[in-house]
Amino acid sequence: MTSLPEPLVALITELGKLPGIGPRSAERLALYLVQGDRPAVEKLSRVLLQAREQIRECSQCGALTQQDPCAICGDPRRDGKIVCVVERPVDVLSIEKAGAYRGLYHVLGGKLSPVNGVGPEDLRIAELERRLAGGSVAEIIVALGSDVEGEATGFYLAKRLAPLGVRLTRLAHGLPVGSSLEFADELTLSRAIEGRQTLS
Amino acid sequence: MTSLPEPLVALITELGKLPGIGPRSAERLALYLVQGDRPAVEKLSRVLLQAREQIRECSQCGALTQQDPCAICGDPRRDGKIVCVVERPVDVLSIEKAGAYRGLYHVLGGKLSPVNGVGPEDLRIAELERRLAGGSVAEIIVALGSDVEGEATGFYLAKRLAPLGVRLTRLAHGLPVGSSLEFADELTLSRAIEGRQTLS
Repeated sequence: MTSLPEPLVALITELGKLPGIGPRSAERLALYLVQGDRPAVEKLSRVLLQAREQIRECSQCGALTQQDPCAICGDPRRDGKIVCVVERPVDVLSIEKAGAYRGLYHVLGGKLSPVNGVGPEDLRIAELERRLAGGSVAEIIVALGSDVEGEATGFYLAKRLAPLGVRLTRLAHGLPVGSSLEFADELTLSRAIEGRQTLS
Repeated sequence: MTSLPEPLVALITELGKLPGIGPRSAERLALYLVQGDRPAVEKLSRVLLQAREQIRECSQCGALTQQDPCAICGDPRRDGKIVCVVERPVDVLSIEKAGAYRGLYHVLGGKLSPVNGVGPEDLRIAELERRLAGGSVAEIIVALGSDVEGEATGFYLAKRLAPLGVRLTRLAHGLPVGSSLEFADELTLSRAIEGRQTLS
């Protein structure tokens, strides 16, 4: 029996280790790559290495960055009194895109999830406490997902950070802008009613 | 507004060009890679380049190989009188795994598909004719998928190769081994009846 050439098998093996890439996808991707445009493949190989070498976590906020501290932590125009706690580095990008926030960030690196074995020591919570110990932070905005794990992580943070006397807030729940009532689920709708605001 | 660091954006862009990888998957993969195990990423980058550089199409059969001719075409123990025509390089592997075939292969590189703009000149049919012109091939086994395009390609080959006087066969249709009647579709079942064999 003749098998696939060794370099192709090696590529399929490595691709198959990536999250969300099963054996079939790995094979399909590998075949595409070895038969594909050569400069494109060389470029992918290069940017992959460059990204891994040049991207690191900001030692202060944990966001992905080329320089340390990152562009946000190092920007004197940002408001250092507010820290927005997010789950993942991409969440920083989402909030930055919205353009409404001028404070700093803190990336937790996940959410508490006992079923998946993620405890407080697996998240960057100790780092957050260390930042707060400086005393210059007045408010923490908890901007985690509003699923069970996100809510639980928020409550855990509230309890653990309480002794530090920092104001803790969370993102408002409510109707997405531009959506109509009929598409809102009951929980979102009841949160939107609870959080109703005065029309003035 | 602060955006993702440039090397990360470059990686997301390149990953997003791969088949079946959408913008969300590209982002997820890129984040996994820049935060992942460094030697593993270096290895992926390396095997990617190696595979692209070292794997080529066999000039005779079109299968993917490191040396030319490939291990199968270059093996004197293989029966050069039979050529099995397949669609893709991986199909060679599937048949080799079965272990029942000792002839040579010819990879077409696709199936005729007028809707997708794939005509005879896009497939390695002229190369097949050139191989047959030598006169040493006695039988062609058409081992294409039994979908409409596969069948059409088979008929086209039969018509085009007829003047060469080579025997053309195709893989048998029938029930998959180990499957029961109730799960067979009507077409497979009627083909299995047509192709019934004597129990002796």
